[in-house]
Amino acid sequence: MAKLTRKISESTIHRLSIYYRALVALERDNYTTISSKELAKREKLTPAQVRKDLSFFGSFGTRGLGYPVAELKNRIAEILGLTRLWNVALIGVGNIGSALAQYKEFAKQGFNIKLVFDNDQRKIGSNHKGIIVSDIRDFKRLVQAEKVDIVIIAVPAQAAQAICDEVVSAGIKAILNFAPINLKVPDDVILRNQNMCIELEHLAFALSNPGN
Amino acid sequence: MAKLTRKISESTIHRLSIYYRALVALERDNYTTISSKELAKREKLTPAQVRKDLSFFGSFGTRGLGYPVAELKNRIAEILGLTRLWNVALIGVGNIGSALAQYKEFAKQGFNIKLVFDNDQRKIGSNHKGIIVSDIRDFKRLVQAEKVDIVIIAVPAQAAQAICDEVVSAGIKAILNFAPINLKVPDDVILRNQNMCIELEHLAFALSNPGN
Repeated sequence: MAKLTRKISESTIHRLSIYYRALVALERDNYTTISSKELAKREKLTPAQVRKDLSFFGSFGTRGLGYPVAELKNRIAEILGLTRLWNVALIGVGNIGSALAQYKEFAKQGFNIKLVFDNDQRKIGSNHKGIIVSDIRDFKRLVQAEKVDIVIIAVPAQAAQAICDEVVSAGIKAILNFAPINLKVPDDVILRNQNMCIELEHLAFALSNPGN
Repeated sequence: MAKLTRKISESTIHRLSIYYRALVALERDNYTTISSKELAKREKLTPAQVRKDLSFFGSFGTRGLGYPVAELKNRIAEILGLTRLWNVALIGVGNIGSALAQYKEFAKQGFNIKLVFDNDQRKIGSNHKGIIVSDIRDFKRLVQAEKVDIVIIAVPAQAAQAICDEVVSAGIKAILNFAPINLKVPDDVILRNQNMCIELEHLAFALSNPGN
């Protein structure tokens, strides 16, 4: 396991995810090395930013040759925790939840959706859009039995905090929230929010401020 | 229209979206002012970062009193381009596309999905999961007639670049891509990628590096 010598900021982690994806694509295209300049250009960053971010891994880029693609990809994967499988449970099979339950990229990245829950008796069982849906009343027992690491909340906003409290009381320490509401969790639980509007807002900003 | 006196970075725009959401919630809870310290605490940022970000709007926070909630919210909305409606078209009604087509938060934020396209004749018409689906062959004519500003691509990865090229040739200047692939667009087109795995990777990172 790679050890971190210092703290990594949120935005660096975000960029590491982006580099990781770029390196996967580069490896597929048979690149063996990549310069900070080229990586920066692909991802619309500055070479200095790329070099600074990658300095977290110690110095193993070679001046003039660049970084070894496969090795750098593996080092980033280790740091991001992508070299192992993660057990994920999903709560709520509305439109977004159903789509996520069937989203194949998650498994490709090591995120296995092992359990899907809802409280709607008509959806519980094995006949809801091809998804096996468990009863939310069995949540604690099932997530503990299946050693779930991460829970995705995709329930309506007004139900989200109560569901979140249940998730926390089952001992889950990492939650991804799709409900458009700020959830409260204890300090030892990590909460991330997936806001579907933010990327559209970036586009709206760019269209409103041409040349920014 | 608010004028920008200098360029705003990607990560600042991202935080402006977050402040905007916080201010909407604060206004709903009848706050009239908010200090940089309180806003920072809510969003897990530093007060210095908040003050720096909000300095883009000129100095209108008052020491000791903080920022006027409603005014700051409106200024950020103007900058982000959220004070007007945006016409959006969506391509691809698979699992993710169908969910997005029915996602109510978009309209609440001013993003009106006016057109939904697919190339599957069985989905075209008005009977696919309650969504009216247009034929992709009519794309150019319909998006021009409806004055579409932004296109969301939610087609399978292998179809995405060809669809993207069609979108560009119809004159669209802003694209949000959900396909797990890097799309190429001309310099005058703004492309954003919504990667559904990135937030899960943040959680995986946090679980792998406790105390980071």
